[in-house]
Amino acid sequence: MATDTFLKPGPAIILVEPQLGENIGMVARAMLNCGLTDLRLVNPRDGWPSAEAVATSANASAVIENTRVYQKTEHAIRDIDTLYATTARPRDMVKRVVTPRQAATELVEQTKASGRCGLLFGREAKGLKNDDVVLADTIVTVPLNPEFTSLNLAQAVFCVAYEWFQAQDETSPSETPLPKNIHPASKQELLGLFEHLEGALDDSGFLQIKEKRPNMVRTLRNIWQRANLTDQETRTLRGVIKSLVRYRGSSKN
Amino acid sequence: MATDTFLKPGPAIILVEPQLGENIGMVARAMLNCGLTDLRLVNPRDGWPSAEAVATSANASAVIENTRVYQKTEHAIRDIDTLYATTARPRDMVKRVVTPRQAATELVEQTKASGRCGLLFGREAKGLKNDDVVLADTIVTVPLNPEFTSLNLAQAVFCVAYEWFQAQDETSPSETPLPKNIHPASKQELLGLFEHLEGALDDSGFLQIKEKRPNMVRTLRNIWQRANLTDQETRTLRGVIKSLVRYRGSSKN
Repeated sequence: MATDTFLKPGPAIILVEPQLGENIGMVARAMLNCGLTDLRLVNPRDGWPSAEAVATSANASAVIENTRVYQKTEHAIRDIDTLYATTARPRDMVKRVVTPRQAATELVEQTKASGRCGLLFGREAKGLKNDDVVLADTIVTVPLNPEFTSLNLAQAVFCVAYEWFQAQDETSPSETPLPKNIHPASKQELLGLFEHLEGALDDSGFLQIKEKRPNMVRTLRNIWQRANLTDQETRTLRGVIKSLVRYRGSSKN
Repeated sequence: MATDTFLKPGPAIILVEPQLGENIGMVARAMLNCGLTDLRLVNPRDGWPSAEAVATSANASAVIENTRVYQKTEHAIRDIDTLYATTARPRDMVKRVVTPRQAATELVEQTKASGRCGLLFGREAKGLKNDDVVLADTIVTVPLNPEFTSLNLAQAVFCVAYEWFQAQDETSPSETPLPKNIHPASKQELLGLFEHLEGALDDSGFLQIKEKRPNMVRTLRNIWQRANLTDQETRTLRGVIKSLVRYRGSSKN
């Protein structure tokens, strides 16, 4: 799959005793959305392969077709160097608890150092058993509304996978630049628009009260200035003004 | 709902022409996970209320019971001051495009300034129509694997809602502190453990090669040091040592 050629290698997602094939398919889709392809199932209740999983995976076949199944969590984690366990509720266990964002930063660092990482997720309703959590180096808990923390399994996987994708993509800007064929209006084009409109409004009488004119002109210029117009848009607006002037002329005559 | 008493007021989630009740229910669940309760539907295909939505909402009744339905997008956004449109694919439109993280920062700022904010989401398969996108101030696009950007509707809502929750919760640490009833072992307790083990290993003969002893002692001490033991755990380990010594003694006699 070409995905692996440009994305940094990501963590394995390990679902322990998942119950519904539908959820496994949604997990596969969420993983591929974030460029992850290594899905492992421990003792899935309804077996594997699953037609329901294929149906909800939205063609995430790069994940579904390479999914591996294990009988025990211990077998699924043998090649993992650093393991995170995702839990919603606090455990009576002395172990680091971090946010998905913090975990993602650590996952990217560990992968750079050639460490193989994995993320454990538990059953839909009950989450991970303590016997599984204890195998992990660190616990991941998603900060959520404390009165409603029950996260859908695919949402939990998406959350951590999404944070991983953002963390490994160091170059991603928070704002996308404009396409190259779009050009902001130059000041000359803007001034051309301002003067065109003001001339038309002088003619129409809108600006005839002399002492109010400077303030009204500033108000109008500021509206266009704030609109971050493109060169094409200034031309469109000048066409609008011309059209209105022509219409006014014909209706008056 | 008590949620509103401690969370900052959040943006409205506006689903335009959603098709499946199941997806609306999953959106409601994802919203309440992140403390959002203002759900609006524009022309839902299968009508409203929806038994399917209730079934998949996992008891997010604070959202489901207050959902409002509108015939047109324009009607649903009347009280909104700042509107974001979520799209996966680029539009032929001159409009700011930001990440969910950047949008979340802006949403928190605008809410502080008493602005009412909304987020538009389109139909499951096709997303928003350009006639809806044009109503928005800013476009939000989730950075994803460019080869597989088709995000489930509830995942898209969760993503933006999750980022909003993280942004409004300025005090959330990236790592959760240990519970108050857990105490790291004092140096005195650690040294007690070290000396207890080393004494037992002197007796057993494990440390009998004199020139190797200092290095082996350092190795063992470093293991325990690195484990960040609690006071209770040092006592457990001293019990383990005692038990092993007793067993060895009895099996030899």
